[in-house]
Amino acid sequence: MPQKVSVGIVGASGYGGVQLVRLLLEHPHIDITFLGAHQNNGVRFDELYPQFGHRVSLVCEEPDPDTIAERCSLVFLGTPNGVAIGLAPALLKKGCQVLDLSADYRFSDLETYRRWYGGERTDHEVARTAVYGLPELYRERLRAARLVGCPGCYPTASLLAVAPLLKQGLIDPRSVIIDAKSGVSGAGRTLNVGSLFAEADGTVAAYKVARHRHTPEIEQICSELAGTPIHIQFTPHLVPMVRGMLVTLYAQLRDPGLVSEDLLTIFEAFYRQCPAVHILPSGVYPQTKWANGTNICYIGLEVDPRTERVVVLAAIDNLMKGQSAQAIQVMNITQGWPEMTGLPQMGFYP
Amino acid sequence: MPQKVSVGIVGASGYGGVQLVRLLLEHPHIDITFLGAHQNNGVRFDELYPQFGHRVSLVCEEPDPDTIAERCSLVFLGTPNGVAIGLAPALLKKGCQVLDLSADYRFSDLETYRRWYGGERTDHEVARTAVYGLPELYRERLRAARLVGCPGCYPTASLLAVAPLLKQGLIDPRSVIIDAKSGVSGAGRTLNVGSLFAEADGTVAAYKVARHRHTPEIEQICSELAGTPIHIQFTPHLVPMVRGMLVTLYAQLRDPGLVSEDLLTIFEAFYRQCPAVHILPSGVYPQTKWANGTNICYIGLEVDPRTERVVVLAAIDNLMKGQSAQAIQVMNITQGWPEMTGLPQMGFYP
Amino acid sequence: MPQKVSVGIVGASGYGGVQLVRLLLEHPHIDITFLGAHQNNGVRFDELYPQFGHRVSLVCEEPDPDTIAERCSLVFLGTPNGVAIGLAPALLKKGCQVLDLSADYRFSDLETYRRWYGGERTDHEVARTAVYGLPELYRERLRAARLVGCPGCYPTASLLAVAPLLKQGLIDPRSVIIDAKSGVSGAGRTLNVGSLFAEADGTVAAYKVARHRHTPEIEQICSELAGTPIHIQFTPHLVPMVRGMLVTLYAQLRDPGLVSEDLLTIFEAFYRQCPAVHILPSGVYPQTKWANGTNICYIGLEVDPRTERVVVLAAIDNLMKGQSAQAIQVMNITQGWPEMTGLPQMGFYP
Amino acid sequence: MPQKVSVGIVGASGYGGVQLVRLLLEHPHIDITFLGAHQNNGVRFDELYPQFGHRVSLVCEEPDPDTIAERCSLVFLGTPNGVAIGLAPALLKKGCQVLDLSADYRFSDLETYRRWYGGERTDHEVARTAVYGLPELYRERLRAARLVGCPGCYPTASLLAVAPLLKQGLIDPRSVIIDAKSGVSGAGRTLNVGSLFAEADGTVAAYKVARHRHTPEIEQICSELAGTPIHIQFTPHLVPMVRGMLVTLYAQLRDPGLVSEDLLTIFEAFYRQCPAVHILPSGVYPQTKWANGTNICYIGLEVDPRTERVVVLAAIDNLMKGQSAQAIQVMNITQGWPEMTGLPQMGFYP
Repeated sequence: MPQKVSVGIVGASGYGGVQLVRLLLEHPHIDITFLGAHQNNGVRFDELYPQFGHRVSLVCEEPDPDTIAERCSLVFLGTPNGVAIGLAPALLKKGCQVLDLSADYRFSDLETYRRWYGGERTDHEVARTAVYGLPELYRERLRAARLVGCPGCYPTASLLAVAPLLKQGLIDPRSVIIDAKSGVSGAGRTLNVGSLFAEADGTVAAYKVARHRHTPEIEQICSELAGTPIHIQFTPHLVPMVRGMLVTLYAQLRDPGLVSEDLLTIFEAFYRQCPAVHILPSGVYPQTKWANGTNICYIGLEVDPRTERVVVLAAIDNLMKGQSAQAIQVMNITQGWPEMTGLPQMGFYP
Repeated sequence: MPQKVSVGIVGASGYGGVQLVRLLLEHPHIDITFLGAHQNNGVRFDELYPQFGHRVSLVCEEPDPDTIAERCSLVFLGTPNGVAIGLAPALLKKGCQVLDLSADYRFSDLETYRRWYGGERTDHEVARTAVYGLPELYRERLRAARLVGCPGCYPTASLLAVAPLLKQGLIDPRSVIIDAKSGVSGAGRTLNVGSLFAEADGTVAAYKVARHRHTPEIEQICSELAGTPIHIQFTPHLVPMVRGMLVTLYAQLRDPGLVSEDLLTIFEAFYRQCPAVHILPSGVYPQTKWANGTNICYIGLEVDPRTERVVVLAAIDNLMKGQSAQAIQVMNITQGWPEMTGLPQMGFYP
Repeated sequence: MPQKVSVGIVGASGYGGVQLVRLLLEHPHIDITFLGAHQNNGVRFDELYPQFGHRVSLVCEEPDPDTIAERCSLVFLGTPNGVAIGLAPALLKKGCQVLDLSADYRFSDLETYRRWYGGERTDHEVARTAVYGLPELYRERLRAARLVGCPGCYPTASLLAVAPLLKQGLIDPRSVIIDAKSGVSGAGRTLNVGSLFAEADGTVAAYKVARHRHTPEIEQICSELAGTPIHIQFTPHLVPMVRGMLVTLYAQLRDPGLVSEDLLTIFEAFYRQCPAVHILPSGVYPQTKWANGTNICYIGLEVDPRTERVVVLAAIDNLMKGQSAQAIQVMNITQGWPEMTGLPQMGFYP
Repeated sequence: MPQKVSVGIVGASGYGGVQLVRLLLEHPHIDITFLGAHQNNGVRFDELYPQFGHRVSLVCEEPDPDTIAERCSLVFLGTPNGVAIGLAPALLKKGCQVLDLSADYRFSDLETYRRWYGGERTDHEVARTAVYGLPELYRERLRAARLVGCPGCYPTASLLAVAPLLKQGLIDPRSVIIDAKSGVSGAGRTLNVGSLFAEADGTVAAYKVARHRHTPEIEQICSELAGTPIHIQFTPHLVPMVRGMLVTLYAQLRDPGLVSEDLLTIFEAFYRQCPAVHILPSGVYPQTKWANGTNICYIGLEVDPRTERVVVLAAIDNLMKGQSAQAIQVMNITQGWPEMTGLPQMGFYP
């Protein structure tokens, strides 16, 4: 048995943080040695989440790089966009491995980041070393990564749905339309009127149509897969459920003779070495709640011979495969452990 | 004040029926003189729905055409597909006006009906007289209609979202993709595992991808609007809410120079005489629950200059503007009453 | 037809306010002539609630007593506790009738108010004139009231459930236990973590056990009904639904020979002149959503011969009969109009 | 490491069964060697639950005692009430250990069973050997049990809430009132109108007031704890959530001088050796969803000095500690393994 790795979690009080704490407490090779939370600095973790009182006695601390580096060899940053820029360079310099869950290190072109997220970047050299943390596409590069920009929920589900199609040249890349449906926890524990139960329950709506910040991130990877720069139509919706995300992806097939079973075979082959992706049988489409509490992405699809389009359906838990569990999957890869170590593969149902 | 019209409701025990009862009880020009329910024949309506015990003392009866015709001059048929075929011809012959809420009289081409719904039709002559009950498109034809095939929820929301675009030739008709999200009441009060709370809560999924029976109905009207036969991509989803429907419609603009405000102006003009459609201001997209308990369709839209597509968002209450309230709107038109008589125009919120 | 009464609503932007606006817009005898909202001063009402854009063009104003009194003869105050104290005396002096929805004018003993709500009162004389706005118990006193302290949701449902039992001396008054279940909208549109969808969905919990501020209000009226000061056990719970409230009330019967039907008869008689209360048949217990969107309180009950207790179940819409619609019911009484004028008596279902 | 135990699950297709399959697949000392399902006989388990397709290849079989006994040394019976009576005696005779999740073996007095569940019993001798499967109260007796009647969700939460109070004589036993709130999955995967999403969402109601069949089961154990026969007031409610159960228990304190902290100390001591019970700090009351996906019962309480009552709040996952996980906890005890082996102790949140 390998010696345990000392891990820190910055941004521990948010929903991303609490998933990391929950998962890493049961990870066989990990010791949590630092919990950082700027606003809840000094607060016991089980005051924020009393349900963990029988298992956690950690206290949130001010996320100071020196303290963190002293205690941790690997750090998860679950902080708001823009915060990692100020933390990651110092942590890396002090020898920590950094897995960032924000948008800060997801872009190969920092000009794109600036355009969609604002702010000036002074960390170009560090940013250049970052690897995009989607294991199914970048597993090899991740093995040696010291800095990882872990994708969020929308890009994860969207890219897993479209990757085999783009990589194999099966679709017209300009025809891709992604209609995404997300649970409300995607908005985090932040207070805003739209996230109130009374507002969000019993209703569905689109938001940020044609201007959601995950669009350029999806486009960056899609362009890489397609070998040519492309624009994606991406529309996020909020649905009245806590967790879960469904992506419904539409694309025009290049070869109208393909049937659903052909594409399922191609998807199966594409993800054969990927324990976090499960391709469903023909005619079965995923329920988002199948994925809840797991690191699994469920994918189903259908070819419509009348319109010569393929419709791909990909479901994940937005806080797990779409965020924290995937970051742990990345950690497992960088440490040389089996990819799904410490990650649930079966949810509870119903 | 006009004399009250005697109205019958067949299929009164289902969700469509209970909306009709509820609305018609408060309609100023209507007397409900017959409640038909085959399975609940002989049962008091307030045994099925005790919440109406202080207002309703009607008893469900076997839907016999002679009895109905004796008592009613107008009949709503809220029966399963295929039942109206056996009832409508007799009722019409006896002088009743018939507003059918099932699929039976929605198709101008009965061969299309047969292909998607099965069964043989012997009522071609009667069917030929049916008018499609979407007031915003067929108001004039409806004025004198004796038999109306009232559209269901998916076609209503889809057609209201796409009509101005197709009619004005603003989009490539083959590019239309409709991603629809429906509340669970759309499945009716029928017992099946997927409609159980434990199964349907906290989850989203697509169903009947590329083969939902509302597809040909939408295509029929779209083809008429476009002046050429077209295929539509239509994907229904179930979302965990009781009522409500959102249609997210994607289409390629012919003139990429159009901006959102241009299209909003066109939609405003198109629906100027339509009290049941409300076009939202620029940047506002509808919440389905705004429409709950009303006969209003809320429409918002956005042009994406990067992809040259328009994204239209249309929200209705699937049981109201998507079903029963719209049938009453049709009745109002056929009777020469103001279109929204007896129909709520503001919901309760939150 | 009487001349329309000019009405003002202060606190129009909250959930109580939006019910009042919605209901009064359709009230046949009312003109809304003032919308007050301190924080949203200057904002169009349909910017806050875009779903009313086709019906409302009112703008929220700073709630200044002079302006209000100039334009209104009757004012609803839907403001936070403590605000009405500063507004009502001035409005009354200027000739306005005041219906306050906060706790400020519900207590006959202001010392009780001070103990539970804090703050010093300088309006003893004005407060002495206030009538408690529960029509089923105080209809006569309300007819001439100039200042009404309208009860909130918990007291309304609790008192309607217990009143016949206490008034007729059927139970041991010290045995009353009220286990209440409320929808989340009861917390208003205020931002707090516990009201977030992600926190409140899929869960039930009690809160403020043995120390909720509605306890002394319930006790005040119960003591009056019982003719002796009594303490009530009151436990509020939050359940994952937007609207609705259920009170489950337990009490020890004085005469163990009474059966359910006896008590139902007594309840029927007690509420015979009360169009807002509907007693359910034996064996039927109310669903909270039957009451949604209505001003009806549904009551069912059961006697348990094994324990010699009665269990009463009362369901209301917490924002309607539990708040705004009831305030309008009070207004109708003070104006001499039929009690349910402009108030829905049937909800939509499901 | 001990040799793996061969386990069978009868009633595998229901919600109880799917929890057992899910949990036992990850239990370190178990092999599932039989899946029984009468109606789904011959069906692959992952056709019923496609989300387990990547982990389960078992097929449901007809639950024949000979086949079961051949392959299993321990059997979970998750069958409808009355079925275990026909299976358990045969299985025990063939040497199987039987853990029954139905009501069949929960009663020491079969006459009570007959009165509430009907049917004649011919298995008195076998029934006499059954132990009530609540580990916190009967851990010692369970160690050697061959036949266990595992309690359901209502009795588990109720008894854990009341046991310390009754055992220590702190309350008047006749004063106990249990107001229980259950998620809808408690009704199982059975089809009935009340369990439909459209009916159960957004509403709360009581059911089977004063006549729920869990009442005598709770009374049996309470009477044993109190040392005298007592009647309990028990009222179940359905709340719109899939999983979870909250019990709010009221009782009159014998010593009115006790404060909340005293009772918390007593509860802490009572459950000190119980890893499945977590007593919350003073002022904290459990959310049901804290317990979801775990075998933990969370308990909080409050003394009301005004009424001299204690209010105890106990939350469990109705399908886990309230059913299947608790049955596995019992199995662990009978096998001499640590009590929580293979059982989650931390849920996912939110």
